Amino acid sequence: MKELMYEGKAKKVFKAENENEVYIYYKDDATAFNGVKRSKISNKGILNNEITEILFIKLGKLGVKNHFIKRIDDRTQLCQKVDIIPLEFIVRNYIAGSMAKRLQIEEGTKPSNTIFEICLKDDELGDPLINDHHAVALNICSYEELHHMYKMANKVNEILSETFIKEGIILVDFKIEFGKNNQGEILLADEISPDTCRLWDSETLEKLDKDRFRRDLGSIEEAYIEILKRIK
Amino acid sequence: MKELMYEGKAKKVFKAENENEVYIYYKDDATAFNGVKRSKISNKGILNNEITEILFIKLGKLGVKNHFIKRIDDRTQLCQKVDIIPLEFIVRNYIAGSMAKRLQIEEGTKPSNTIFEICLKDDELGDPLINDHHAVALNICSYEELHHMYKMANKVNEILSETFIKEGIILVDFKIEFGKNNQGEILLADEISPDTCRLWDSETLEKLDKDRFRRDLGSIEEAYIEILKRIK
Repeated sequence: MKELMYEGKAKKVFKAENENEVYIYYKDDATAFNGVKRSKISNKGILNNEITEILFIKLGKLGVKNHFIKRIDDRTQLCQKVDIIPLEFIVRNYIAGSMAKRLQIEEGTKPSNTIFEICLKDDELGDPLINDHHAVALNICSYEELHHMYKMANKVNEILSETFIKEGIILVDFKIEFGKNNQGEILLADEISPDTCRLWDSETLEKLDKDRFRRDLGSIEEAYIEILKRIK
Repeated sequence: MKELMYEGKAKKVFKAENENEVYIYYKDDATAFNGVKRSKISNKGILNNEITEILFIKLGKLGVKNHFIKRIDDRTQLCQKVDIIPLEFIVRNYIAGSMAKRLQIEEGTKPSNTIFEICLKDDELGDPLINDHHAVALNICSYEELHHMYKMANKVNEILSETFIKEGIILVDFKIEFGKNNQGEILLADEISPDTCRLWDSETLEKLDKDRFRRDLGSIEEAYIEILKRIK
Protein backbone atom coordinates (compact mmCIF):
# COMPACT_ATOMS: atom_id res chain seq x y z
CA MET A 1 0.00 0.00 0.00
CA LYS A 2 1.42 3.34 -1.03
CA GLU A 3 1.60 6.09 1.56
CA LEU A 4 -0.87 8.93 1.01
CA MET A 5 0.84 12.33 1.17
CA TYR A 6 -2.05 14.58 0.24
CA GLU A 7 -5.64 14.27 -0.88
CA GLY A 8 -7.17 17.05 -2.98
CA LYS A 9 -10.62 17.46 -4.42
CA ALA A 10 -9.93 15.46 -7.60
CA LYS A 11 -6.63 13.68 -6.97
CA LYS A 12 -4.58 11.84 -4.37
CA VAL A 13 -0.81 12.10 -4.15
CA PHE A 14 1.20 9.11 -2.88
CA LYS A 15 4.86 8.70 -2.00
CA ALA A 16 6.96 6.99 -4.66
CA GLU A 17 10.10 4.86 -4.23
CA ASN A 18 12.26 7.81 -5.29
CA GLU A 19 11.82 10.68 -2.84
CA ASN A 20 11.83 13.21 -5.69
CA GLU A 21 8.82 11.56 -7.32
CA VAL A 22 5.14 11.00 -6.47
CA TYR A 23 2.25 8.92 -7.74
CA ILE A 24 -0.77 11.00 -8.67
CA TYR A 25 -4.09 9.14 -8.64
CA TYR A 26 -7.10 10.66 -10.42
CA LYS A 27 -10.43 10.29 -8.62
CA ASP A 28 -13.97 10.47 -9.99
CA ASP A 29 -14.96 13.16 -7.46
CA ALA A 30 -16.21 16.42 -8.89
CA THR A 31 -16.58 19.63 -6.92
CA ALA A 32 -17.57 23.13 -7.95
CA PHE A 33 -18.12 26.56 -6.41
CA ASN A 34 -15.28 26.14 -3.93
CA GLY A 35 -16.47 22.70 -2.81
CA VAL A 36 -20.12 23.64 -2.26
CA LYS A 37 -21.37 21.37 -5.08
CA ARG A 38 -20.09 17.79 -4.89
CA SER A 39 -20.68 14.63 -6.88
CA LYS A 40 -18.92 11.85 -8.76
CA ILE A 41 -18.58 11.63 -12.53
CA SER A 42 -18.16 8.02 -13.74
CA ASN A 43 -14.71 7.35 -15.14
CA LYS A 44 -13.67 11.01 -14.82
CA GLY A 45 -10.43 9.95 -13.14
CA ILE A 46 -9.57 7.60 -15.98
CA LEU A 47 -10.41 10.17 -18.65
CA ASN A 48 -8.59 13.09 -16.99
CA ASN A 49 -5.53 10.94 -16.28
CA GLU A 50 -5.24 10.09 -19.97
CA ILE A 51 -6.10 13.58 -21.26
CA THR A 52 -3.53 15.14 -18.92
CA GLU A 53 -0.94 12.57 -19.99
CA ILE A 54 -1.45 13.30 -23.68
CA LEU A 55 -1.30 17.08 -23.17
CA PHE A 56 1.66 17.04 -20.77
CA ILE A 57 3.69 14.82 -23.12
CA LYS A 58 2.89 17.16 -26.01
CA LEU A 59 3.76 20.28 -23.99
CA GLY A 60 6.99 18.68 -22.78
CA LYS A 61 8.07 17.87 -26.36
CA LEU A 62 7.46 21.50 -27.29
CA GLY A 63 9.60 22.83 -24.44
CA VAL A 64 7.15 23.38 -21.59
CA LYS A 65 8.85 21.70 -18.63
CA ASN A 66 6.31 19.84 -16.55
CA HIS A 67 6.09 17.32 -13.73
CA PHE A 68 4.81 14.33 -15.77
CA ILE A 69 7.17 11.33 -15.93
CA LYS A 70 5.10 8.33 -17.06
CA ARG A 71 1.80 6.50 -16.93
CA ILE A 72 1.49 3.85 -14.22
CA ASP A 73 -2.07 2.64 -14.76
CA ASP A 74 -5.41 3.99 -15.97
CA ARG A 75 -5.79 6.34 -13.00
CA THR A 76 -2.19 6.89 -11.92
CA GLN A 77 0.81 8.76 -13.25
CA LEU A 78 4.34 9.07 -11.90
CA CYS A 79 5.37 12.72 -11.61
CA GLN A 80 8.22 14.79 -10.25
CA LYS A 81 7.53 15.85 -6.69
CA VAL A 82 7.02 19.59 -6.55
CA ASP A 83 5.99 22.14 -3.98
CA ILE A 84 2.92 23.71 -5.53
CA ILE A 85 3.12 27.51 -5.79
CA PRO A 86 -0.24 28.58 -4.30
CA LEU A 87 -1.45 30.50 -7.35
CA GLU A 88 -3.97 29.57 -10.01
CA PHE A 89 -2.92 30.96 -13.38
CA ILE A 90 -5.98 31.53 -15.53
CA VAL A 91 -5.66 32.23 -19.24
CA ARG A 92 -8.69 33.48 -21.15
CA ASN A 93 -9.10 33.59 -24.93
CA TYR A 94 -12.83 34.24 -24.64
CA ILE A 95 -14.68 35.70 -21.70
CA ALA A 96 -16.65 33.21 -19.62
CA GLY A 97 -17.22 32.04 -16.06
CA SER A 98 -16.11 34.22 -13.15
CA MET A 99 -14.82 37.05 -15.33
CA ALA A 100 -18.09 37.30 -17.26
CA LYS A 101 -19.94 37.42 -13.95
CA ARG A 102 -17.64 39.83 -12.08
CA LEU A 103 -17.49 42.36 -14.89
CA GLN A 104 -20.93 41.67 -16.41
CA ILE A 105 -19.60 40.83 -19.85
CA GLU A 106 -21.47 38.46 -22.13
CA GLU A 107 -20.05 34.95 -22.16
CA GLY A 108 -18.26 34.14 -25.39
CA THR A 109 -17.05 37.71 -26.01
CA LYS A 110 -13.62 37.68 -27.66
CA PRO A 111 -11.32 40.35 -26.18
CA SER A 112 -8.61 41.98 -28.28
CA ASN A 113 -5.93 40.63 -25.93
CA THR A 114 -5.24 37.36 -24.13
CA ILE A 115 -6.26 37.77 -20.49
CA PHE A 116 -4.04 36.35 -17.75
CA GLU A 117 -5.19 36.27 -14.14
CA ILE A 118 -3.74 34.94 -10.93
CA CYS A 119 -5.85 33.81 -8.01
CA LEU A 120 -4.58 32.96 -4.56
CA LYS A 121 -5.13 29.25 -3.86
CA ASP A 122 -6.91 29.60 -0.53
CA ASP A 123 -10.26 27.87 -0.05
CA GLU A 124 -11.10 29.87 3.08
CA LEU A 125 -10.69 33.15 1.21
CA GLY A 126 -12.52 31.76 -1.85
CA ASP A 127 -9.44 31.75 -4.15
CA PRO A 128 -9.55 35.55 -4.63
CA LEU A 129 -8.22 37.31 -7.71
CA ILE A 130 -4.95 39.02 -6.86
CA ASN A 131 -2.25 40.80 -8.84
CA ASP A 132 1.52 40.43 -9.09
CA HIS A 133 2.22 42.90 -6.29
CA HIS A 134 -0.02 40.95 -3.91
CA ALA A 135 1.73 37.67 -4.77
CA VAL A 136 5.12 39.23 -4.01
CA ALA A 137 3.84 40.92 -0.82
CA LEU A 138 2.50 37.54 0.33
CA ASN A 139 6.02 36.06 -0.22
CA ILE A 140 4.63 33.53 -2.68
CA CYS A 141 7.20 34.24 -5.37
CA SER A 142 9.35 36.98 -6.89
CA TYR A 143 8.44 39.30 -9.77
CA GLU A 144 10.98 37.36 -11.91
CA GLU A 145 9.32 34.03 -11.12
CA LEU A 146 5.92 35.50 -11.98
CA HIS A 147 7.29 36.73 -15.29
CA HIS A 148 8.63 33.25 -16.01
CA MET A 149 5.30 31.60 -15.16
CA TYR A 150 3.32 34.04 -17.32
CA LYS A 151 5.68 33.22 -20.21
CA MET A 152 5.10 29.50 -19.66
CA ALA A 153 1.32 30.07 -19.40
CA ASN A 154 1.40 31.95 -22.68
CA LYS A 155 3.27 29.10 -24.37
CA VAL A 156 0.84 26.54 -22.94
CA ASN A 157 -2.00 28.63 -24.36
CA GLU A 158 -0.43 28.79 -27.82
CA ILE A 159 0.21 25.05 -27.95
CA LEU A 160 -3.13 23.96 -26.52
CA SER A 161 -5.20 26.41 -28.56
CA GLU A 162 -3.63 25.02 -31.73
CA THR A 163 -3.96 21.41 -30.58
CA PHE A 164 -7.64 21.80 -29.76
CA ILE A 165 -8.71 23.91 -32.73
CA LYS A 166 -7.32 21.26 -35.10
CA GLU A 167 -9.84 18.89 -33.50
CA GLY A 168 -12.73 21.34 -33.77
CA ILE A 169 -12.52 22.56 -30.19
CA ILE A 170 -12.21 26.16 -28.98
CA LEU A 171 -10.00 26.59 -25.91
CA VAL A 172 -12.07 29.28 -24.16
CA ASP A 173 -9.99 29.46 -20.99
CA PHE A 174 -8.01 27.27 -18.62
CA LYS A 175 -6.39 27.14 -15.22
CA ILE A 176 -2.89 25.84 -14.59
CA GLU A 177 -0.64 25.52 -11.58
CA PHE A 178 3.11 25.49 -11.18
CA GLY A 179 5.41 23.87 -8.65
CA LYS A 180 9.09 23.87 -7.76
CA ASN A 181 11.03 20.62 -7.85
CA ASN A 182 13.90 19.78 -5.50
CA GLN A 183 16.26 21.71 -7.79
CA GLY A 184 14.16 24.85 -7.37
CA GLU A 185 13.09 24.63 -11.01
CA ILE A 186 9.58 25.83 -11.83
CA LEU A 187 7.54 23.13 -13.60
CA LEU A 188 4.02 23.09 -14.94
CA ALA A 189 2.18 20.75 -12.53
CA ASP A 190 -1.34 19.65 -11.52
CA GLU A 191 -3.50 18.59 -14.49
CA ILE A 192 -4.92 19.86 -17.78
CA SER A 193 -8.32 18.34 -18.49
CA PRO A 194 -11.98 19.25 -19.02
CA ASP A 195 -12.01 19.88 -15.25
CA THR A 196 -9.55 22.76 -15.68
CA CYS A 197 -10.33 24.05 -19.21
CA ARG A 198 -13.41 25.45 -20.89
CA LEU A 199 -13.69 23.61 -24.21
CA TRP A 200 -16.43 24.42 -26.71
CA ASP A 201 -17.17 22.56 -29.93
CA SER A 202 -16.14 25.03 -32.63
CA GLU A 203 -19.18 24.27 -34.80
CA THR A 204 -22.00 23.95 -32.28
CA LEU A 205 -20.42 25.85 -29.34
CA GLU A 206 -21.52 22.92 -27.17
CA LYS A 207 -19.70 22.86 -23.84
CA LEU A 208 -17.43 19.83 -23.49
CA ASP A 209 -16.07 20.51 -20.01
CA LYS A 210 -16.83 20.81 -16.32
CA ASP A 211 -19.43 23.52 -16.95
CA ARG A 212 -21.74 20.59 -17.84
CA PHE A 213 -21.43 19.61 -14.17
CA ARG A 214 -21.48 23.16 -12.73
CA ARG A 215 -24.58 24.07 -14.74
CA ASP A 216 -26.38 20.69 -14.61
CA LEU A 217 -26.26 20.21 -18.38
CA GLY A 218 -25.98 16.41 -18.21
CA SER A 219 -23.89 14.08 -20.45
CA ILE A 220 -20.75 14.95 -18.51
CA GLU A 221 -18.90 11.66 -19.03
CA GLU A 222 -19.80 11.73 -22.73
CA ALA A 223 -18.27 15.20 -23.11
CA TYR A 224 -15.00 14.12 -21.45
CA ILE A 225 -14.93 10.99 -23.66
CA GLU A 226 -15.41 13.21 -26.72
CA ILE A 227 -12.45 15.40 -25.72
CA LEU A 228 -10.20 12.37 -25.23
CA LYS A 229 -11.32 10.84 -28.53
CA ARG A 230 -10.53 14.03 -30.47
CA ILE A 231 -7.04 14.66 -29.06
CA LYS A 232 -5.96 11.00 -29.02
CA MET B 1 -24.94 80.68 -12.25
CA LYS B 2 -22.43 78.27 -13.63
CA GLU B 3 -23.69 75.26 -15.54
CA LEU B 4 -23.37 71.95 -13.68
CA MET B 5 -21.73 69.29 -15.84
CA TYR B 6 -21.45 66.47 -13.34
CA GLU B 7 -22.11 65.85 -9.66
CA GLY B 8 -20.10 63.20 -7.85
CA LYS B 9 -20.20 62.03 -4.24
CA ALA B 10 -17.84 64.72 -2.92
CA LYS B 11 -17.52 67.27 -5.73
CA LYS B 12 -19.44 69.12 -8.40
CA VAL B 13 -17.97 69.97 -11.79
CA PHE B 14 -19.13 73.15 -13.58
CA LYS B 15 -18.46 74.50 -17.06
CA ALA B 16 -15.84 77.24 -17.24
CA GLU B 17 -15.55 80.11 -19.74
CA ASN B 18 -12.82 78.23 -21.61
CA GLU B 19 -14.20 74.95 -22.96
CA ASN B 20 -10.99 73.14 -22.03
CA GLU B 21 -11.36 74.06 -18.37
CA VAL B 22 -13.80 73.29 -15.55
CA TYR B 23 -14.58 74.56 -12.07
CA ILE B 24 -14.43 71.87 -9.41
CA TYR B 25 -16.42 72.58 -6.27
CA TYR B 26 -15.69 70.58 -3.09
CA LYS B 27 -18.76 69.56 -1.06
CA ASP B 28 -19.01 68.55 2.60
CA ASP B 29 -20.76 65.29 1.71
CA ALA B 30 -19.08 62.13 2.88
CA THR B 31 -19.92 58.65 1.68
CA ALA B 32 -18.38 55.27 2.38
CA PHE B 33 -18.87 51.62 1.47
CA ASN B 34 -19.91 52.43 -2.08
CA GLY B 35 -22.42 55.05 -0.97
CA VAL B 36 -24.14 52.96 1.71
CA LYS B 37 -22.95 55.23 4.55
CA ARG B 38 -23.68 58.92 4.00
CA SER B 39 -23.21 62.05 6.06
CA LYS B 40 -21.72 65.54 5.97
CA ILE B 41 -18.43 66.54 7.57
CA SER B 42 -18.34 70.26 8.45
CA ASN B 43 -15.91 72.20 6.33
CA LYS B 44 -14.61 69.06 4.61
CA GLY B 45 -15.01 70.71 1.20
CA ILE B 46 -12.93 73.72 2.28
CA LEU B 47 -10.23 71.55 3.83
CA ASN B 48 -9.98 69.09 0.92
CA ASN B 49 -9.96 71.89 -1.63
CA GLU B 50 -6.96 73.47 0.08
CA ILE B 51 -5.14 70.19 0.80
CA THR B 52 -5.56 69.09 -2.82
CA GLU B 53 -4.35 72.47 -4.04
CA ILE B 54 -1.17 72.33 -1.94
CA LEU B 55 -0.40 68.76 -3.01
CA PHE B 56 -1.20 69.23 -6.71
CA ILE B 57 0.97 72.38 -6.87
CA LYS B 58 3.83 70.49 -5.22
CA LEU B 59 3.43 67.48 -7.53
CA GLY B 60 3.28 69.76 -10.57
CA LYS B 61 6.53 71.49 -9.58
CA LEU B 62 8.18 68.09 -9.28
CA GLY B 63 7.06 66.98 -12.73
CA VAL B 64 3.75 65.19 -12.15
CA LYS B 65 1.44 66.70 -14.73
CA ASN B 66 -2.00 67.28 -13.24
CA HIS B 67 -5.27 69.04 -13.98
CA PHE B 68 -4.98 71.81 -11.33
CA ILE B 69 -4.78 75.37 -12.73
CA LYS B 70 -5.62 77.73 -9.87
CA ARG B 71 -7.67 78.41 -6.77
CA ILE B 72 -10.95 80.26 -7.32
CA ASP B 73 -12.36 80.41 -3.79
CA ASP B 74 -12.30 78.34 -0.61
CA ARG B 75 -14.29 75.50 -2.17
CA THR B 76 -13.53 75.87 -5.87
CA GLN B 77 -10.56 75.32 -8.12
CA LEU B 78 -10.12 75.85 -11.84
CA CYS B 79 -8.80 72.72 -13.54
CA GLN B 80 -8.12 71.41 -17.02
CA LYS B 81 -11.12 69.54 -18.37
CA VAL B 82 -10.32 65.87 -18.69
CA ASP B 83 -12.13 62.69 -19.54
CA ILE B 84 -11.63 60.58 -16.44
CA ILE B 85 -10.15 57.15 -17.17
CA PRO B 86 -12.51 54.84 -15.23
CA LEU B 87 -9.82 53.24 -13.07
CA GLU B 88 -8.90 53.83 -9.45
CA PHE B 89 -5.15 53.49 -8.96
CA ILE B 90 -4.43 52.41 -5.39
CA VAL B 91 -0.90 52.54 -3.99
CA ARG B 92 -0.16 50.80 -0.70
CA ASN B 93 2.92 51.27 1.46
CA TYR B 94 1.31 49.46 4.39
CA ILE B 95 -1.53 46.97 4.27
CA ALA B 96 -4.91 48.32 5.39
CA GLY B 97 -8.53 48.56 4.36
CA SER B 98 -9.89 46.34 1.61
CA MET B 99 -6.61 44.49 1.03
CA ALA B 100 -6.26 43.61 4.74
CA LYS B 101 -9.83 42.32 4.68
CA ARG B 102 -9.73 40.44 1.37
CA LEU B 103 -6.49 38.63 2.12
CA GLN B 104 -6.83 38.50 5.92
CA ILE B 105 -3.59 40.33 6.62
CA GLU B 106 -3.17 42.40 9.77
CA GLU B 107 -3.62 46.12 9.21
CA GLY B 108 -0.37 48.03 9.42
CA THR B 109 1.76 45.17 8.03
CA LYS B 110 4.61 46.56 5.91
CA PRO B 111 5.13 44.50 2.74
CA SER B 112 8.56 44.19 1.15
CA ASN B 113 7.28 45.86 -2.03
CA THR B 114 5.02 48.78 -2.90
CA ILE B 115 1.62 47.42 -3.89
CA PHE B 116 -0.22 48.91 -6.86
CA GLU B 117 -3.82 47.97 -7.62
CA ILE B 118 -6.35 49.06 -10.18
CA CYS B 119 -10.09 48.92 -9.60
CA LEU B 120 -12.75 49.47 -12.21
CA LYS B 121 -14.72 52.63 -11.41
CA ASP B 122 -18.21 51.13 -11.56
CA ASP B 123 -20.54 51.63 -8.61
CA GLU B 124 -22.95 48.94 -9.79
CA LEU B 125 -20.18 46.35 -9.84
CA GLY B 126 -18.77 47.65 -6.54
CA ASP B 127 -15.52 49.02 -8.04
CA PRO B 128 -14.00 45.54 -8.42
CA LEU B 129 -10.27 44.87 -8.37
CA ILE B 130 -9.08 44.12 -11.89
CA ASN B 131 -5.70 43.66 -13.56
CA ASP B 132 -4.00 45.21 -16.57
CA HIS B 133 -5.35 42.60 -18.99
CA HIS B 134 -8.92 43.29 -17.89
CA ALA B 135 -8.46 47.05 -18.35
CA VAL B 136 -7.19 46.50 -21.90
CA ALA B 137 -9.93 43.95 -22.68
CA LEU B 138 -12.52 46.47 -21.48
CA ASN B 139 -11.03 49.01 -23.94
CA ILE B 140 -10.30 51.42 -21.09
CA CYS B 141 -6.69 52.04 -22.10
CA SER B 142 -3.64 50.42 -23.69
CA TYR B 143 -0.86 48.52 -21.94
CA GLU B 144 1.43 51.50 -22.69
CA GLU B 145 -0.96 53.95 -21.06
CA LEU B 146 -1.22 51.70 -18.01
CA HIS B 147 2.56 51.58 -17.80
CA HIS B 148 2.67 55.38 -17.93
CA MET B 149 0.03 55.75 -15.22
CA TYR B 150 1.80 53.25 -12.93
CA LYS B 151 5.00 55.28 -13.35
CA MET B 152 3.13 58.48 -12.46
CA ALA B 153 1.49 56.74 -9.47
CA ASN B 154 4.90 55.62 -8.29
CA LYS B 155 6.26 59.16 -8.53
CA VAL B 156 3.22 60.54 -6.69
CA ASN B 157 3.89 57.98 -3.96
CA GLU B 158 7.55 58.96 -3.63
CA ILE B 159 6.78 62.67 -3.43
CA LEU B 160 3.81 62.40 -1.08
CA SER B 161 5.44 59.85 1.24
CA GLU B 162 8.38 62.22 1.69
CA THR B 163 6.14 65.28 2.07
CA PHE B 164 4.02 63.63 4.74
CA ILE B 165 6.76 61.88 6.73
CA LYS B 166 8.56 65.21 7.20
CA GLU B 167 5.40 66.36 9.00
CA GLY B 168 5.14 63.25 11.14
CA ILE B 169 2.56 61.50 8.99
CA ILE B 170 2.78 58.02 7.48
CA LEU B 171 1.23 57.72 4.02
CA VAL B 172 -0.31 54.25 4.42
CA ASP B 173 -2.09 54.11 1.07
CA PHE B 174 -3.95 56.33 -1.36
CA LYS B 175 -6.22 56.32 -4.40
CA ILE B 176 -5.69 58.50 -7.44
CA GLU B 177 -7.39 58.92 -10.78
CA PHE B 178 -6.18 60.02 -14.17
CA GLY B 179 -7.86 61.75 -17.06
CA LYS B 180 -7.07 62.73 -20.63
CA ASN B 181 -7.19 66.38 -21.66
CA ASN B 182 -8.22 67.62 -25.10
CA GLN B 183 -4.67 66.97 -26.34
CA GLY B 184 -4.95 63.29 -25.32
CA GLU B 185 -2.36 63.86 -22.62
CA ILE B 186 -2.77 61.81 -19.44
CA LEU B 187 -2.96 64.03 -16.34
CA LEU B 188 -3.32 63.25 -12.67
CA ALA B 189 -6.86 64.40 -11.85
CA ASP B 190 -9.56 64.17 -9.15
CA GLU B 191 -8.25 65.04 -5.65
CA ILE B 192 -5.66 64.04 -3.06
CA SER B 193 -6.96 64.55 0.45
CA PRO B 194 -7.77 62.67 3.68
CA ASP B 195 -10.80 61.38 1.75
CA THR B 196 -8.50 59.53 -0.66
CA CYS B 197 -5.43 58.73 1.47
CA ARG B 198 -4.85 56.79 4.68
CA LEU B 199 -2.70 59.05 6.86
CA TRP B 200 -1.47 57.91 10.29
CA ASP B 201 0.38 60.03 12.83
CA SER B 202 3.89 58.55 12.82
CA GLU B 203 4.24 58.73 16.63
CA THR B 204 0.81 57.70 17.86
CA LEU B 205 -0.45 55.86 14.72
CA GLU B 206 -3.67 57.84 15.15
CA LYS B 207 -5.77 57.85 11.98
CA LEU B 208 -6.05 61.31 10.42
CA ASP B 209 -8.25 60.42 7.44
CA LYS B 210 -11.63 59.22 6.23
CA ASP B 211 -11.35 56.01 8.27
CA ARG B 212 -12.47 58.20 11.22
CA PHE B 213 -15.77 58.52 9.32
CA ARG B 214 -15.92 54.92 8.04
CA ARG B 215 -15.22 53.50 11.49
CA ASP B 216 -17.12 56.07 13.59
CA LEU B 217 -14.01 57.27 15.41
CA GLY B 218 -15.22 60.87 15.80
CA SER B 219 -13.16 64.10 15.50
CA ILE B 220 -13.21 63.90 11.73
CA GLU B 221 -13.01 67.62 11.00
CA GLU B 222 -10.20 67.98 13.57
CA ALA B 223 -8.19 65.27 11.80
CA TYR B 224 -8.55 66.97 8.41
CA ILE B 225 -7.59 70.34 9.98
CA GLU B 226 -4.50 68.69 11.48
CA ILE B 227 -3.42 67.38 8.06
CA LEU B 228 -3.84 70.80 6.47
CA LYS B 229 -1.95 72.49 9.32
CA ARG B 230 1.01 70.14 8.99
CA ILE B 231 1.46 70.36 5.20
CA LYS B 232 0.78 74.11 4.95
